[in-house]
Amino acid sequence: MARNLTFESILSIEGRVLKRPEGQENKYMGTGDIEVEVKSLKVLNIANSNIPFIIRDYNKANENVQMKYRYISLRYPELQKNLRLRSEVIMKMREYLIKECDFVDIETPTLFKNTPEGAHEFIVPTKLLGQFYSLVQSPQQFKQLLMVGGFDRYFQVARCYRDEKPRHDRQPEFTQLDIEMSFVDCEGIMMLIENLLAYSWPQESGELTIPFKHMKYEDAMELYGTDKPDLRIPQQLCRLTELIDHSVLEQSLKMEQNEHREVYALVFSQKHGFLTKSIKDTISELQCTYFPSVKLIQTKIPNKSPVITNIIDGNVQQKLNLKEGDVLFLACGEKVHTQSLLGKVRLEFTKSLESKGQEICTNRNEFLWITDFPLFSFNTETNSLETMHHPFTQPHPDDMQYLMNNPLKVRGLHYDLVMNGFEIAGGSIRIHDSKLQKQLFKMLNIDETHLMHILDALESGAPPHGGIAIGLDRLICLLCNTKNIKNVIAFPKTTTGRDLMSGAPVPISEKIKKLYNIQTVDK
Amino acid sequence: MARNLTFESILSIEGRVLKRPEGQENKYMGTGDIEVEVKSLKVLNIANSNIPFIIRDYNKANENVQMKYRYISLRYPELQKNLRLRSEVIMKMREYLIKECDFVDIETPTLFKNTPEGAHEFIVPTKLLGQFYSLVQSPQQFKQLLMVGGFDRYFQVARCYRDEKPRHDRQPEFTQLDIEMSFVDCEGIMMLIENLLAYSWPQESGELTIPFKHMKYEDAMELYGTDKPDLRIPQQLCRLTELIDHSVLEQSLKMEQNEHREVYALVFSQKHGFLTKSIKDTISELQCTYFPSVKLIQTKIPNKSPVITNIIDGNVQQKLNLKEGDVLFLACGEKVHTQSLLGKVRLEFTKSLESKGQEICTNRNEFLWITDFPLFSFNTETNSLETMHHPFTQPHPDDMQYLMNNPLKVRGLHYDLVMNGFEIAGGSIRIHDSKLQKQLFKMLNIDETHLMHILDALESGAPPHGGIAIGLDRLICLLCNTKNIKNVIAFPKTTTGRDLMSGAPVPISEKIKKLYNIQTVDK
Repeated sequence: MARNLTFESILSIEGRVLKRPEGQENKYMGTGDIEVEVKSLKVLNIANSNIPFIIRDYNKANENVQMKYRYISLRYPELQKNLRLRSEVIMKMREYLIKECDFVDIETPTLFKNTPEGAHEFIVPTKLLGQFYSLVQSPQQFKQLLMVGGFDRYFQVARCYRDEKPRHDRQPEFTQLDIEMSFVDCEGIMMLIENLLAYSWPQESGELTIPFKHMKYEDAMELYGTDKPDLRIPQQLCRLTELIDHSVLEQSLKMEQNEHREVYALVFSQKHGFLTKSIKDTISELQCTYFPSVKLIQTKIPNKSPVITNIIDGNVQQKLNLKEGDVLFLACGEKVHTQSLLGKVRLEFTKSLESKGQEICTNRNEFLWITDFPLFSFNTETNSLETMHHPFTQPHPDDMQYLMNNPLKVRGLHYDLVMNGFEIAGGSIRIHDSKLQKQLFKMLNIDETHLMHILDALESGAPPHGGIAIGLDRLICLLCNTKNIKNVIAFPKTTTGRDLMSGAPVPISEKIKKLYNIQTVDK
Repeated sequence: MARNLTFESILSIEGRVLKRPEGQENKYMGTGDIEVEVKSLKVLNIANSNIPFIIRDYNKANENVQMKYRYISLRYPELQKNLRLRSEVIMKMREYLIKECDFVDIETPTLFKNTPEGAHEFIVPTKLLGQFYSLVQSPQQFKQLLMVGGFDRYFQVARCYRDEKPRHDRQPEFTQLDIEMSFVDCEGIMMLIENLLAYSWPQESGELTIPFKHMKYEDAMELYGTDKPDLRIPQQLCRLTELIDHSVLEQSLKMEQNEHREVYALVFSQKHGFLTKSIKDTISELQCTYFPSVKLIQTKIPNKSPVITNIIDGNVQQKLNLKEGDVLFLACGEKVHTQSLLGKVRLEFTKSLESKGQEICTNRNEFLWITDFPLFSFNTETNSLETMHHPFTQPHPDDMQYLMNNPLKVRGLHYDLVMNGFEIAGGSIRIHDSKLQKQLFKMLNIDETHLMHILDALESGAPPHGGIAIGLDRLICLLCNTKNIKNVIAFPKTTTGRDLMSGAPVPISEKIKKLYNIQTVDK
């Protein structure tokens, strides 16, 4: 009977459980110490002899095949482990919020109205001619309305939808732990999240020590060239703008005069053997693609070429503590671009070093709160103000004076939580004053008639409130030590939003289109 | 300061907590024994003086106003209580499933492919020309695929979508506790649910005793004229078909001869004073609307009219134990229609009696499993078989012999849980054999090419499995003792699917329509 069985068939076996004979134990298996002396064997369901792949780690199917036959790939030990861990961690989070902190789990609708800036929202036609729902990008409005409704501690594991450009770490639907509280300040929310993570953190995911570090947005940009610095990498950026002789710089690099130019450097000590042509090309490409206006020097120390020696004089060498054998990246250009380029170089060169066995990153998890974000950014194309996060963020009380005259100087009461270089949570204290909210809408060119329910709500007895959302797919990735978001989702879609198993999305019948009063038209 | 405050304004008060002077305690308030001697009062947010309604139970706003200003009505003690209870009960369910029974909470997609019979599925256009997702009506396919994938105990509090005809107890999106297990039989699932409900049942919602009663579908129809009998009402239907002289019946009621005719009666003892013209009219209308082919007699006992006395002879009187002062409903016609009409009369007359202070219902909660449903029903319009539930239900093993020749005789391994006359859960053991599944698709005229992933899955090592889903909105209604589903949902939509607060659904811009390659067309 056993000889005719195929792999992955489902059996019912009765028999006696015995200890394995000495020497035949398999310590890599949970049941490796025992075996079963079979008395009866019943085949409950025979598997096809040519199923597309067998669950063996040494013979893993490629991602697309795994996604087409997801019901088979879910049997891989890694996916079993990840999804079970996900369930456990989220349960712990609920436990902490409900049992330890008296939060209420409240479900909010996903079929809602399009938001004024909702360029990335899926639409859902209804049977009412020309009328559409939109799938929510987050429960933002609802959670604020719950605060107005007297549910002063709300949370929800919320399904959210975003129809954005394909990216490997994005899914059209995703899950966030959504939290909102009344009568709270930034510190209150941050403390809650630290305790929540400490409570729900699985042992196998490494150490977590609270409280977390804090850093201002400006300092993060200055030292790491990003608003989500990976603190496991010790190297920092160093500003040289005042030390450098700009006329020498202009001459050497053939640049025009520019009094707004900034100069930053990044040094990797004693790594000159690793600045290969290949990594230099990768980094150059990065610069050309993302920051074409920034000039970048990549060099080993020493470098005798006059271009380099002219720029890096004694002062600079002293400031950077440059030694023979070091690798130096030096960038100059518009401030944020210069910082950001070196921020990317810092990650890219570290990745390259680590792939060659060099240990750059520390072993511990690095958590970091980023605060004091600017409230606005300026869109030079549309020549108008935009929010850095969303239009409900409370301006920093110390900066209210600049709101009308110098809005780009205004910080928002926003906070992001970064873990090992990934943003895992973000939130803010919200505006609870309807006049201020109205003013913000106006500054941002948002037609307030679409958001009257929010303005009315703020006038009907709204407590001060704030909240946060944790991106669960990303967080669970970090906990499971996997880079691919598809490894923590049971039925993920491809980067282009396709479900390879069922083929969705698919064409639909004319009958259904008629039911919803729509027709397909080619652009 | 206090004099200028408006109702519902938000204050911060500092002061000393004191015991209230004797005699001034308010035992109806949680804080009725104390008061605060105010030292400082700060207005955090003033409320508009003309907010649409004030939170006082004696002055409740009507439903539409409550829904437009949902953020205010959420402050009503009833909504506060209901939503907090909902959160607690669902947490208890999770606790039971995860901690006591090793279930894994797994999220499944809501953006999926339309199902072959999915007439009630919302569609979601994508940026791919002519290609659409559909919003899932339930995670049915995914939960079965999870069983194939080796997650042998799955649950999820799942958001589901259904675009059905408006009905007061339906919402376009709703929530179910979705459960699936491998290697389980009907009894296993029923026991799980009984223990789950016993574990999570709030004290204030009345008694719950397990195990629950069981009844076959056929018996439920025979005795109660419905597949969801409310056992709190003691009255049962009584079949008279063999006792009645059909030629007398035909003569008295001027009916044609019909050998398939069935006769059923329903008696309410000693209630003749309550069979008013008004209730008789209501019941007649019910008959005309839903069962025009069924003849119905409504009468007090005694009734001297020859029509009645001819039909209700001594034998019938004895069988029904008829006494002076009783109310008799007698119906004849096609079997299921006759039963169903009296089933509705049973509920309607009880409602009328109870509204007049007559106690008909017992006080305890009545739970009941209904089993042995027919697998198929016959659609006389399309002249074809349809499923009673869904095409994945396993036929009863004792009835496999009838599958080809007499399919309407085949029962399915389906079970419904009824509480106080409401269906609160339903599920089944599923087909795990791909050949049988194929055969069912064929019998049901379902094009198997749309469901190849299911057939392939069943051939790739699929364990026997089954599951159930509990309708949480309805269950929480029963727990909260409210009839209106909107009272257990934070942001409900109207019967026609409108969110009165934001106005959704709304027209969308031409730009967005272009993005999704659609145009609105008038039918």
